[in-house]
Amino acid sequence: MQSTMQDVPLTISRILRHGTRVHGTSRITTWAGEGEPHRTTFHETGARAAQLAHALRDELGVRPDDRVATLMWNNHQHVDAYFAIPSMGAVLHTLNLRLPPEQLVWIVNHAADRVILVDGTLLPLLAGLLPRLAPVEHIVVVGPGDASVLEGCAARVHDYDQLLADRPTSYDWPEVDERSAAAMCYTSGTTGDPKGVVFSHRSVYLHSMQVNMTESMGLTSGDTTLPVVPMFHVNAWGLPHAAFMTGVNLLMPDRFLQPGPLADMIAAERPTHSAAVPVIWQGLLAELAERPRDISSLRTVTIGGSACPPAMIEAFDELHGVRVCHAWGMTETSPLGTVAHPPGGLTAEEEWPYRISQGRFPAGVEARLAAPDGGFAPWDGTSAGELEVRGPWIAAAYFGGAGEEPLRPEDKFSPDGWLRTGDVGVITPEGYLTLTDRAKDVIKSGGEWISSVELENALMAHESVLEAAVVAVPDEKWGERPLAVVVPKEGEEPVGYEELCGFLGKTVARWQLPERWASVEAVPKTSVGKFDKKVLRAQYAAGELEVTRLG
Amino acid sequence: MQSTMQDVPLTISRILRHGTRVHGTSRITTWAGEGEPHRTTFHETGARAAQLAHALRDELGVRPDDRVATLMWNNHQHVDAYFAIPSMGAVLHTLNLRLPPEQLVWIVNHAADRVILVDGTLLPLLAGLLPRLAPVEHIVVVGPGDASVLEGCAARVHDYDQLLADRPTSYDWPEVDERSAAAMCYTSGTTGDPKGVVFSHRSVYLHSMQVNMTESMGLTSGDTTLPVVPMFHVNAWGLPHAAFMTGVNLLMPDRFLQPGPLADMIAAERPTHSAAVPVIWQGLLAELAERPRDISSLRTVTIGGSACPPAMIEAFDELHGVRVCHAWGMTETSPLGTVAHPPGGLTAEEEWPYRISQGRFPAGVEARLAAPDGGFAPWDGTSAGELEVRGPWIAAAYFGGAGEEPLRPEDKFSPDGWLRTGDVGVITPEGYLTLTDRAKDVIKSGGEWISSVELENALMAHESVLEAAVVAVPDEKWGERPLAVVVPKEGEEPVGYEELCGFLGKTVARWQLPERWASVEAVPKTSVGKFDKKVLRAQYAAGELEVTRLG
Repeated sequence: MQSTMQDVPLTISRILRHGTRVHGTSRITTWAGEGEPHRTTFHETGARAAQLAHALRDELGVRPDDRVATLMWNNHQHVDAYFAIPSMGAVLHTLNLRLPPEQLVWIVNHAADRVILVDGTLLPLLAGLLPRLAPVEHIVVVGPGDASVLEGCAARVHDYDQLLADRPTSYDWPEVDERSAAAMCYTSGTTGDPKGVVFSHRSVYLHSMQVNMTESMGLTSGDTTLPVVPMFHVNAWGLPHAAFMTGVNLLMPDRFLQPGPLADMIAAERPTHSAAVPVIWQGLLAELAERPRDISSLRTVTIGGSACPPAMIEAFDELHGVRVCHAWGMTETSPLGTVAHPPGGLTAEEEWPYRISQGRFPAGVEARLAAPDGGFAPWDGTSAGELEVRGPWIAAAYFGGAGEEPLRPEDKFSPDGWLRTGDVGVITPEGYLTLTDRAKDVIKSGGEWISSVELENALMAHESVLEAAVVAVPDEKWGERPLAVVVPKEGEEPVGYEELCGFLGKTVARWQLPERWASVEAVPKTSVGKFDKKVLRAQYAAGELEVTRLG
Repeated sequence: MQSTMQDVPLTISRILRHGTRVHGTSRITTWAGEGEPHRTTFHETGARAAQLAHALRDELGVRPDDRVATLMWNNHQHVDAYFAIPSMGAVLHTLNLRLPPEQLVWIVNHAADRVILVDGTLLPLLAGLLPRLAPVEHIVVVGPGDASVLEGCAARVHDYDQLLADRPTSYDWPEVDERSAAAMCYTSGTTGDPKGVVFSHRSVYLHSMQVNMTESMGLTSGDTTLPVVPMFHVNAWGLPHAAFMTGVNLLMPDRFLQPGPLADMIAAERPTHSAAVPVIWQGLLAELAERPRDISSLRTVTIGGSACPPAMIEAFDELHGVRVCHAWGMTETSPLGTVAHPPGGLTAEEEWPYRISQGRFPAGVEARLAAPDGGFAPWDGTSAGELEVRGPWIAAAYFGGAGEEPLRPEDKFSPDGWLRTGDVGVITPEGYLTLTDRAKDVIKSGGEWISSVELENALMAHESVLEAAVVAVPDEKWGERPLAVVVPKEGEEPVGYEELCGFLGKTVARWQLPERWASVEAVPKTSVGKFDKKVLRAQYAAGELEVTRLG
């Protein structure tokens, strides 16, 4: 039986129109370092988005489904692009300016970007890549910068302000299918080519509603949010779209992401909320310890991207009266996967375990734990499994390239279509997730899983251990067993493996204790500073480690 | 270009599963008057919903799209039905037990309800109708009641608890199309047959997300809401569904809606939020003045259904420290249309005009004002027009009856598919709506609109006037002009029309002043106590009023 309701597609142009009309006076402030911040409103953003769409269509010939890339910091012009490009039916492709040049080149070619909007300050980065960016026909330079570095490039070069000038400030946004592509973002795994996630209008719309729900970030038109998380990282966690739905003011840091300028802009502009990865906050805390600034306007900071050290949550609480809210997600989850709001009515002490967990699944994210035995682990807070998720803002595949079929690698998507997150964890009966390991690092021992991270943390608590890495190595009887690789602290007595194993035994179940032990001078690291367990496993396989066997 | 996102339909079974799994410990408490309240959890509700679905399918033969009606108060079994019936693919039809028997009979037959779930306490009401309810094959009696009144009826009679007993507590909910019918609700206009609005899974899901957004009711799992608004009034404004999305505890008043029991249950169960029409709150305030109870647990009450007198907002603020939040909607809008949250950062005094307005349009509700000249009025806070709305939880038509095409009456739906609300009002540049009149009561005078309500309020402010109604009457020159009909206060000097017109002239524009005046002993009223302007217009047309013409 059909309903009698209106069939109104969930599109980004609707979010734009709502923000422009109902929250037209809400503000976007872009920090300018020593200079005066740039100030604009949602209403003016609507006008500029219309002008940009006219320019892209009439001057640059952008057609529906064309990819228009941005190589930009968080600023008001990037917000223009966020709304104009999908609303006109094209696809916004945010380029991660921190990727190695080779990957950027690969991504632009794979996405077949026809246009790149680039901050003037990022022209030197782009100039080095441009000769290898064959599909790019137009470069639009946003803000001041030395465009002479582009001389001789095949693409036509435009100035953003000149391109928009005198164009109509309204646009008859087309009614697009809500399931069509709106935006894309590539993830860069440690292995293989980068993988493109293509968000739909529907997924962005629903994710933005969720961001505005109380169990998520829950901001209002009385709030000002400072998205330190870049707009090229999964849509700045949905904040720009969410802001236009509820009128949240945006404070944009542009390229001023160092601790000093961040502290300055918080003190000056008094945001009530911010969002960033832990390393940013670590830097801010250190900066404030050295040179105090008033950050008391912040009510909440949302922390995600990697696990937040509990000590950091405490430091924000105690030193600055700022509540940290932990969250988990990934590019493939738009990114909202969990948010760590404790249940209501608890004391601070009772809240603690909930706050340091990855958080609770919001409505719209279904979860299950794929267990080692091939079934699904119960939500009992102790049974581990690989987290798999399903929902309207979660990826089902990766972009295959222009005209190619989407990619559905088996290790990333289950046969029934759930996303395999690659994270191993446990879920409590109340739906709170705690991640314990990466699936590729977990040790699969006789049908049970051993968390390498748990063993590492336990080992590193020993006074003689500087670093410890635990990796799976083949074992005839158990399939896999843990190999513990330790770096003794300089100046400490070399510690015996027997003693370390006994130390571990105090906190870790007996069957999980490693039999194989080795020492190295330093644990090999990846380019972003994580333990490179691939290398350790290879060294072990090649017999390059001096392994002692206990018991 | 297609996105790579999962295609997960927005269905009520997903809301149920989420509430059951992630918020399983959230509570539903049903008040029982003098007796001990009934207490259950979302987890148990999930189990009972599964049992109910098994019973409906296997024992009662309910098939997809069959209508299953409820004639019930707000209680936990009604919540079971809310989730079980749509989740199994059938259609929940909530019957308004306050309608005249003739209308109830008409509605059950029009909807072709095969099953009715009825509270035991409502059996006497049902028994009187049953002989005329041809499509009804099964009656399920919920809770204690004298089922002997059903003796001799053609339908099979079941006991709710016996029907559910021993059935499986899980159900493999079918994956239904999100645009298919989930629930229906009839509106009873003052003219013509009742009109059925058929909500889809999608519309209910999106509306529930909106209810949980900060700009709407914005409750959390730490809240307990008391939905005084009946579950047969537009899904209790979406609260049961919204509660299952975020774990909000539900305090259900059952049939205890009198001021005394309401005050008792608030004092005893300490809800943090409630929702009801103004008349309920008026009664509660009077009750508390007479016999104080502690209602300080309430943080916010949402008031809608009809305009809330500013004095009531003040009384809640000042006497009880409870913040009233005004909202507007109708059955055709699911019902969330506007919510009166002021912009952030204002003083109490600055907030006031926002709080007494109907409120702001949330994301998902697009609005326009159809102006007298055939165009659309600007959002300038002064230009009036008939409010038209569009959005994914707004009706496009009415149910035509089984096998019939939907009805799209011209006075209710514009040619381009917007809902004509029948309300006349103004919208500020910030998107705040103030309703000034019903479209059918507005006086269309020479291409301008005159609000009958404004003239009435101005007239009733005169010390000699007990009641005043203003209606449109035909006028050769202007098309329509206002006729003022007054009821002088008993014992007051009969007041002259000239004086009243002069009094009006102090607050009303000159061209809006009525030329035609009449006095009556009482303004005719509808069954719900509103001025019956149809009758006044008919009396005028028939020459039954003694009309004085001024000027």
